[in-house]
Amino acid sequence: MLLARVAGTVVASRKEVRLEGLKFLLLEQIGVDNKPTGGHVVAADAVGAGVGEVVMYASGSSARQTEYTHERPCDAVVMAIVDSWEVDGDEQFRK
Amino acid sequence: MLLARVAGTVVASRKEVRLEGLKFLLLEQIGVDNKPTGGHVVAADAVGAGVGEVVMYASGSSARQTEYTHERPCDAVVMAIVDSWEVDGDEQFRK
Amino acid sequence: MLLARVAGTVVASRKEVRLEGLKFLLLEQIGVDNKPTGGHVVAADAVGAGVGEVVMYASGSSARQTEYTHERPCDAVVMAIVDSWEVDGDEQFRK
Amino acid sequence: MLLARVAGTVVASRKEVRLEGLKFLLLEQIGVDNKPTGGHVVAADAVGAGVGEVVMYASGSSARQTEYTHERPCDAVVMAIVDSWEVDGDEQFRK
Amino acid sequence: MLLARVAGTVVASRKEVRLEGLKFLLLEQIGVDNKPTGGHVVAADAVGAGVGEVVMYASGSSARQTEYTHERPCDAVVMAIVDSWEVDGDEQFRK
Repeated sequence: MLLARVAGTVVASRKEVRLEGLKFLLLEQIGVDNKPTGGHVVAADAVGAGVGEVVMYASGSSARQTEYTHERPCDAVVMAIVDSWEVDGDEQFRK
Repeated sequence: MLLARVAGTVVASRKEVRLEGLKFLLLEQIGVDNKPTGGHVVAADAVGAGVGEVVMYASGSSARQTEYTHERPCDAVVMAIVDSWEVDGDEQFRK
Repeated sequence: MLLARVAGTVVASRKEVRLEGLKFLLLEQIGVDNKPTGGHVVAADAVGAGVGEVVMYASGSSARQTEYTHERPCDAVVMAIVDSWEVDGDEQFRK
Repeated sequence: MLLARVAGTVVASRKEVRLEGLKFLLLEQIGVDNKPTGGHVVAADAVGAGVGEVVMYASGSSARQTEYTHERPCDAVVMAIVDSWEVDGDEQFRK
Repeated sequence: MLLARVAGTVVASRKEVRLEGLKFLLLEQIGVDNKPTGGHVVAADAVGAGVGEVVMYASGSSARQTEYTHERPCDAVVMAIVDSWEVDGDEQFRK
């Protein structure tokens, strides 16, 4: 999984039928220092994350292992809202 | 999924039999700012996207989860035509 | 799928038994402008491509969806010989 | 698999139900010279690794092949704590 | 598959049970010119490759398609020892 910040939402009215009902979030990838790394990804939202929250997302076939995304053509999913992380015993991020 | 612009089409008359009938689009990857990032991908088109449209595409095994690409040797598929996206509450793109 | 040019062949007499009989091509990745991007990949050849030809190849589990590579430990396969592609209505490549 | 150093832990109280009970480690990717390469990944911990230890982790669908992560939406897992490695006969790292 | 040189071995006494008995090689990725590209990967060895040999390895789910790695949490496997390759008719590498 990778860390990311929820930047916003993506709207797409015309889409593959198996994507109907999924909410898509635009994620900015961040590093361990909580700064953007320049990459982005569009992920389905399995946890109800809001704009500005820091999340973990899974990619690839793992993104289809949630009930929300089962057998859907979805290659990225937000799996958790991050509360905090530590690096060598020091807290680097707290929500 | 990643954001991309449909740049054009790719024609290949000699191909693996399980690819027969698929339409292949040449996609230019774009960033959150709607500018090209320099990468490209050739994707099957599950939604009837046209040249110039902004789309979302899925990669890897997820690309075989649409009815259009089921059990085909296809590792990228256009899944949706993007209407708009927001970053921190501001609209960054509208079709 | 990605675009590539067939640079040559790779010979390996000692290999995993499930690879017996596959032909391996050395591919140079190219961009939309038909110039090399610096990367390479070794792919099984499902279509009989020759040195110098421009091809599309699939990666990952999709590379095992051809009859040629079914259930083989193969993560890249040449799926099509490219005839041409267009960018914004202009032909960028013709065989 | 890739080499990494365990930098710390990630806490996420709100998460997909199939992730309940997994411990998440924040990994810093390292090179053959045991120096950080700048990348990170959040991985489930199948072996009880501690902060500062050097580990190997698997990515993608392989990350779901441990008993700990079976059928969970998990795309990275720490599989082993590294004791040592050699490069051309010289020991480059020992725990 | 990608080309790599076997740099050495990795020892890990504490590991996921399904990895027991596998031998792990440290691979340096190389380019078509047989020079290192800077990347590395730790791969299971399905063919008995020795230090200094040039090999091909498969990544992702394909790495679990050998008898040696079947259903193991292994995302990279050495599949073949390379004898030679050609670029545009000129031999670039011979063992």
